[in-house]
Amino acid sequence: MKPLIAIDWGTSSLRAARLAADGSVIEERTSDRGILTVPPGGFPAVLAQIAGDWLAAPEALCLVSGMAGSRQGWQEAPYAPCPAGFDEIARALTWVDPGRVALVPGLSCEHDGVPDVMRGEEVQVFGALALQGASEGLFVLPGTHSKWVRVQGGRVTTFATCMSGEFYALLRTHSILSRTLPADDGALDADAFLRGVRHARTAGSLLASAFSVRTLALFDAVPAAAQPSYLSGLVIGEELRVHAHAGLPVTLVGSAALTERYALALADCGIATRCFGAEATWRGLWALARSLQPP
Amino acid sequence: MKPLIAIDWGTSSLRAARLAADGSVIEERTSDRGILTVPPGGFPAVLAQIAGDWLAAPEALCLVSGMAGSRQGWQEAPYAPCPAGFDEIARALTWVDPGRVALVPGLSCEHDGVPDVMRGEEVQVFGALALQGASEGLFVLPGTHSKWVRVQGGRVTTFATCMSGEFYALLRTHSILSRTLPADDGALDADAFLRGVRHARTAGSLLASAFSVRTLALFDAVPAAAQPSYLSGLVIGEELRVHAHAGLPVTLVGSAALTERYALALADCGIATRCFGAEATWRGLWALARSLQPP
Repeated sequence: MKPLIAIDWGTSSLRAARLAADGSVIEERTSDRGILTVPPGGFPAVLAQIAGDWLAAPEALCLVSGMAGSRQGWQEAPYAPCPAGFDEIARALTWVDPGRVALVPGLSCEHDGVPDVMRGEEVQVFGALALQGASEGLFVLPGTHSKWVRVQGGRVTTFATCMSGEFYALLRTHSILSRTLPADDGALDADAFLRGVRHARTAGSLLASAFSVRTLALFDAVPAAAQPSYLSGLVIGEELRVHAHAGLPVTLVGSAALTERYALALADCGIATRCFGAEATWRGLWALARSLQPP
Repeated sequence: MKPLIAIDWGTSSLRAARLAADGSVIEERTSDRGILTVPPGGFPAVLAQIAGDWLAAPEALCLVSGMAGSRQGWQEAPYAPCPAGFDEIARALTWVDPGRVALVPGLSCEHDGVPDVMRGEEVQVFGALALQGASEGLFVLPGTHSKWVRVQGGRVTTFATCMSGEFYALLRTHSILSRTLPADDGALDADAFLRGVRHARTAGSLLASAFSVRTLALFDAVPAAAQPSYLSGLVIGEELRVHAHAGLPVTLVGSAALTERYALALADCGIATRCFGAEATWRGLWALARSLQPP
C-alpha cells in the first residue's frame, strides 16, 4: 500500500500526518490555515505549503477530511447518506487531483424529514472503530456541535448533532447567567458538575434547567467559582438525557479535556466509556486508504 | 374598599393604574423608570413622580408587584413558598410605607431540591384566575423567562421557568444560526412556525432541534425569510414538549404578539387556550387589595 498523507482540514485549523504503510504515524504537522483563511482557488497552494515535500513522493496518496469538502471549502464533496461505511464513502470521494488528492465526503441522515449532517467526524468514528477491532457501537464526538453516532455492521446507521459547546458558550457569555459567573471557568469542580448532570437528566429541558444556575446563585446554593462546572454539567447532562442508554457503552473521541468530562458524566449514569484522541483521525483515513487499495 | 393604586414595577419599565372600588381602571400610566434606572434610596421619589397625585388621596392604598420587591429593587420582599394563595401573599407583603404602600412578594418552589422563582407573574395569574371566576388551571406567561404555573384550590402549587425568550435571542443573535437568518424577524410565517413546533415536540431536546435551522438552510428546505418563525416554533415547541398536556386547557397572560404564538402552537396540539393582557395585572392587585380589606 502507498504511504498516506492524511489531512484533517477544519474551519479554523489544519492537522496533517504522514503515515507508513502499516498505519503508524511518521510525522505530524499543524497549521492555523483553516478553510476560513484560504481564498477561493487557494487550497492547492496551501496544501503545497504544508505538505509539498510529502506530496513530492512519486506514489503519494493524500486524503483530506473535514470542512475542506464543504461548500465553503476547496470543493464540495456531497454528503453520503446513511447508512454508510467505507464502501459508500470511498465511492463518494471527490478527487481534486485524480489518483493523488481526494476530499472525503461528510455523512447525512434524516430524523422525521429533517436532515442532519457531519463532516470529518465520520473519519474519527471509523478510526476509533478500527482501533477497537469493532464493527458496531455508540460514539460521541464532543465539541461545539457534538455528534452522537450509531454504528452497526461497520456502517453509520444514524447520528444526531447537539449544539452543546455552542449553547454553553452562549449561556456563559451572553445570557443573564453570565452575571453571576466568574470571568474564568477555572478547574473542573466535579461535585458541581455532577450536580448539574443529574439535574439536567430529570429536568426535561435545558430551557428550564439552565435557569437553576440563577436560582441556585440567588439562594447562595452554588458558589460562583463552581457555577461554570455546574452549567457544563447541565449541558452535558441534557445530551445524556436524550442519547445515553443504560448498558450501551460509549466510545468518546476528542480532546482529553472534553472526553474526560463526558466519561465522568457517563460513569455517573453507570455507562462504561473508552476514549480516543487524534489517533482516531489518522487511523480512520488510513483504513479508508486501505479500502481503496486492496493489498 | 379604598381605591387602589396598582403598580407593576419591572426591570426596565413601570406601569401604573388607578382603580375604582369595583376594580375598574380609571387611569393608566407607563414609565421607563424600571428598577435598573433607580439609584439606591430613590424609589419613593420615583413613585411620587409617577403617582404622587394619586397617593395624595387620604385613604390611598398602593400595591407594587414585580422586581421592585427584589434584592436589586426598593427593598427585598422575600419569596413566599408554594403552595401559596392570596392569604400567604397578603401575610408576606413588605410595607415600605405602613398601611399605604406595600411590595408584593414573589413566589418560590422546588424541583428535586433546586429552587425556582417568579416575581410579578403571580399577580397576573391570580388576576387571570379572578377574571375567569376560576380556582384552578394551567397558566403560561410567555416572555424572556416564561412561567408555566399550576393553580389548584386557589393556590399556586408549583411552577417552572423556561428561558425561552432569552434562548431565542441568544440563538438568533449570537449563534452560528444567525449567519443564515435575515436581519429582521418579519411577520410570522405560520407554516414555518408550526413546522418548528412539531419538530421540537419529537426531537427530545432543543440542543439537537436547534441545529435543524442550519441543516434545513443547507438543503434549501426553509427559505431565509421563514427561518425566524421556524426557530421561534422550535423554542416554543420545546416548552410544549415538556409542559403541555393533552386535555388540559391553558390560560395565556401576556402581550398579544406572544400569546397569539403560544395559542397557535397549543391549538396545533389540540389544546384550548384563553388569553389575557395587562388587565390581569390590575385585576390581580385589586383582588389582593380586596383580600386585605374585607368589605
